[in-house]
Amino acid sequence: MRYCSGCGAPVELKRPEGDLLDRHVCVGCGEIHYQNPKVVVGAVCGWRDKVLLCRRAIEPRSGFWTIPAGYLEIGESTEQGAAREAWEEARAQIAIDGLLAVYNVVRIGQVQLHYRARLLSPEVAAGPETRELDLFAWEAIPWAELAFPTVQWVLHRAIVLRDHTGPYPPALGPEEAPPQRSR
Amino acid sequence: MRYCSGCGAPVELKRPEGDLLDRHVCVGCGEIHYQNPKVVVGAVCGWRDKVLLCRRAIEPRSGFWTIPAGYLEIGESTEQGAAREAWEEARAQIAIDGLLAVYNVVRIGQVQLHYRARLLSPEVAAGPETRELDLFAWEAIPWAELAFPTVQWVLHRAIVLRDHTGPYPPALGPEEAPPQRSR
Repeated sequence: MRYCSGCGAPVELKRPEGDLLDRHVCVGCGEIHYQNPKVVVGAVCGWRDKVLLCRRAIEPRSGFWTIPAGYLEIGESTEQGAAREAWEEARAQIAIDGLLAVYNVVRIGQVQLHYRARLLSPEVAAGPETRELDLFAWEAIPWAELAFPTVQWVLHRAIVLRDHTGPYPPALGPEEAPPQRSR
Repeated sequence: MRYCSGCGAPVELKRPEGDLLDRHVCVGCGEIHYQNPKVVVGAVCGWRDKVLLCRRAIEPRSGFWTIPAGYLEIGESTEQGAAREAWEEARAQIAIDGLLAVYNVVRIGQVQLHYRARLLSPEVAAGPETRELDLFAWEAIPWAELAFPTVQWVLHRAIVLRDHTGPYPPALGPEEAPPQRSR
């Protein structure tokens, strides 16, 4: 940030009185421009014994598999955002069940909220940011080709809770791979 | 937003190709300036049979009672942010126990994450944004003088879980007042 988004004058980094951190402060109008982490919302979307994954058509990690997820927008709840991403990336209509995980990815300023959801129909199709998509058996998830560590963590979490009904706490950090189920 | 924070040229509201929403786009460098909801983190801090509340010294809702809470900063996790706010507003050192609630306050673009925490010591003191503070018996919470609806909701949630040990799901919306406990 180099200029004030309100008046166009330059900003300088300095510590406002009473603050504990340096901020971008406008030398013209004095406005303090705070920068804050962003919220990413996603959904692990199940259909019977399968889970929806999308192969990314965009960077970063183009070509790798992910759950539908993206930045929360102004004017929507986190649940609405997760449902919108499922629609945008996979033309999937979903019913949200509960909060699977809250992950802090501090290095890149993200708080990720991932929900467990149920596809309302298996009719899905790649949106513009998706190269292809598929419903994978849980035992056939392409672990080595997942786009991000948090996708791996939340899929582990979903497997741990696979047969769980009733309320559950969200994972707040990485989770070990659950033991393989006997077939 | 009227000017580009990167180059200082004016921005205009328009829909980037492939986007579903209008964005602030710089007429000079073309940068798209996304605006996103902010994360608020807070903690219900218990000490034996009491809970820490702070009377706000700043607007909005100056003079009303709240739990320590505020905007998440870049470079910290949500748990670290909640602990920092407890320190800034109440000079409280806390141990976080679990996630009590995730509230969407869509109208003002906030996602609030509130934790259950334990004071490590009853030595607390008002920070600069706090007029006074106190440890309240749960039965003596000043319900009519709370600063925000979400403070009421999360205190209800904490009371519901008051004697609960083990994992618990976060509340995702308002909660009814729990029945009064017999004394």
